[in-house]
Amino acid sequence: MKRRSLLAGSAAGLAGGLALPALFPLVLASSAFAQGDALPSWNDGPSKRSILDFIARTTTGGGRDWVPVPERIACFDNDGTLWTEQPMYFQVVFALDRIKAMAGRHPEWRTQEPFRSVLADDHTALAALGEKGMLDVIAASHSGLSTEQFRAIVLDWIATARHPRFKRPYTDLVYQPMLELLALLRAYQFKTFIVSGGGLEFMRPWTERVYGIPPEQVVGSSGVTKFVMKPDGVPVLMKEAKVEFIDDGPGKPVGINHFIGRRPVFAFGNSDGDQQMLEWTAAGAGARVMGLVQHTHAVREYAYDPESPVGRLDKAWDEAVRRKWAVVDMKNDWKVIYPFELK
Amino acid sequence: MKRRSLLAGSAAGLAGGLALPALFPLVLASSAFAQGDALPSWNDGPSKRSILDFIARTTTGGGRDWVPVPERIACFDNDGTLWTEQPMYFQVVFALDRIKAMAGRHPEWRTQEPFRSVLADDHTALAALGEKGMLDVIAASHSGLSTEQFRAIVLDWIATARHPRFKRPYTDLVYQPMLELLALLRAYQFKTFIVSGGGLEFMRPWTERVYGIPPEQVVGSSGVTKFVMKPDGVPVLMKEAKVEFIDDGPGKPVGINHFIGRRPVFAFGNSDGDQQMLEWTAAGAGARVMGLVQHTHAVREYAYDPESPVGRLDKAWDEAVRRKWAVVDMKNDWKVIYPFELK
Repeated sequence: MKRRSLLAGSAAGLAGGLALPALFPLVLASSAFAQGDALPSWNDGPSKRSILDFIARTTTGGGRDWVPVPERIACFDNDGTLWTEQPMYFQVVFALDRIKAMAGRHPEWRTQEPFRSVLADDHTALAALGEKGMLDVIAASHSGLSTEQFRAIVLDWIATARHPRFKRPYTDLVYQPMLELLALLRAYQFKTFIVSGGGLEFMRPWTERVYGIPPEQVVGSSGVTKFVMKPDGVPVLMKEAKVEFIDDGPGKPVGINHFIGRRPVFAFGNSDGDQQMLEWTAAGAGARVMGLVQHTHAVREYAYDPESPVGRLDKAWDEAVRRKWAVVDMKNDWKVIYPFELK
Repeated sequence: MKRRSLLAGSAAGLAGGLALPALFPLVLASSAFAQGDALPSWNDGPSKRSILDFIARTTTGGGRDWVPVPERIACFDNDGTLWTEQPMYFQVVFALDRIKAMAGRHPEWRTQEPFRSVLADDHTALAALGEKGMLDVIAASHSGLSTEQFRAIVLDWIATARHPRFKRPYTDLVYQPMLELLALLRAYQFKTFIVSGGGLEFMRPWTERVYGIPPEQVVGSSGVTKFVMKPDGVPVLMKEAKVEFIDDGPGKPVGINHFIGRRPVFAFGNSDGDQQMLEWTAAGAGARVMGLVQHTHAVREYAYDPESPVGRLDKAWDEAVRRKWAVVDMKNDWKVIYPFELK
């Protein structure tokens, strides 16, 4: 099956901005969406129908559920919702790779935890060090650099690192059905945002190319950054080894309010870390979609245990069932997982 | 002199989004900008010419200075750059009004500083309490509320409060030449941002209506906000009495990096608090504009002393002169100050 990525379509360029009532129907009529299946990688089913129904109702002028263009805010978790998050968050892989790359300048790390475990690839010992150990790894690997140096390192890693199972760049492991959904929402003048526990400066260098989501529409965790005027009169922003904000769980609605300042009408996640974002979205008035991706495809992606340490889906699952949120079963609702399956 | 506000023009609606190369020339050709003076409230002079020249050079396809649409980021300080800031920051007036409105529930404030001075309109005593006193006033007046309650209070104040000298709503005191500049930049697909020392949640309720700048393009100072699930199952975000981030001075480039994640190519301020934002903008490669508004019109606005406690322009002025940044002399460069002068 060969299909053009919708992200490359001209209609994707209409995100943001205010209404252009006279122009817009023309653009839509000439777009791919008006001519066929707007979500070709999605099987017909309740999830696909509820999404298409929502878009139709909220964007039809004069309808009861119509949403003004500036209020068309759609938020997506990243890890496990837009791209794969197994066997561990890709930003953690990046941090471990960074520690190894930096080890030559830190001989003391050979005996100092959590670095010893990282350098020895001792994942059992590392897991035993818990969240504190992981935050130390991330802090050490993400600080002492200017924002521009860090960006270059991220872009280099994204270009060269390979996923251990799929042997492909991590950015190949984005979900084709979600790329189609992002493009469809933008064609109907929704502004698409990432709202991720991942770091702002780990995601922003590549989200525009990969998802069509520009850096200013990426909400995420952050470390403290400091303005420094160098002796040569050139200012830099230096990344410090101090956590500033964790955009996860109850932090997600806080992050949405902080960065966007509006309540979304559409939100998708895949784990308990997305529960409060979905609750915050649900609590607004009018039509809205709250959705969860359920990882059920052991062959083509991963099938998670509900208690999976990465992507645990327990409390949010109960609430989704109780409140009839959209649950996307990857195996049954999606025809393909990754864009490379189309080639 | 009667002139339609450019903010109402259809071309203003094109902000954001990616390039639409085929459509865009048509839109521009039909806009007001192509047919006459794009900045009608600006006198001809070096500032106006440098702005128009920059826009022409950066948006002409194939030119050496062309800037891709996603990189067209323009940042504006608010107080003293987009609207008046005398005799004191309007958010401070709002905070003082709030303290008075809340005083009935706080009998202890009659003897407790800084509240005693606020309630007695004792501005001398208040000034003597310094920045700490003012932060206490802002913290007390901006916390203990949900974000939605606070938004309603801001909108009510904006609708009813009157400036002591002009006897008009504070939002009438925006600068007509800057409204024209914002609209012109947006017509050429620049994304316009506010980058202000003011509070996010004080500005966002009205910036879209007044400036055409949506909440997600407002960068500002913030207090800590907390997600709370109420007993009735409805979540709220509560504003706490704790400063989170001050978007001023060296905080401005930090805020730009945090919220936008790109370096601006165009930035305007009016005081020393904008110096680092202008330095950060200047340090990028390629064509760019750094500008300062100088308050010189004692009759129609205010003429500041360089050491003015509000809007001090001392170090940034020296740097502007040395580095040949655009300096807009309000009296000589602008034909009108406020939109109501056109009616």
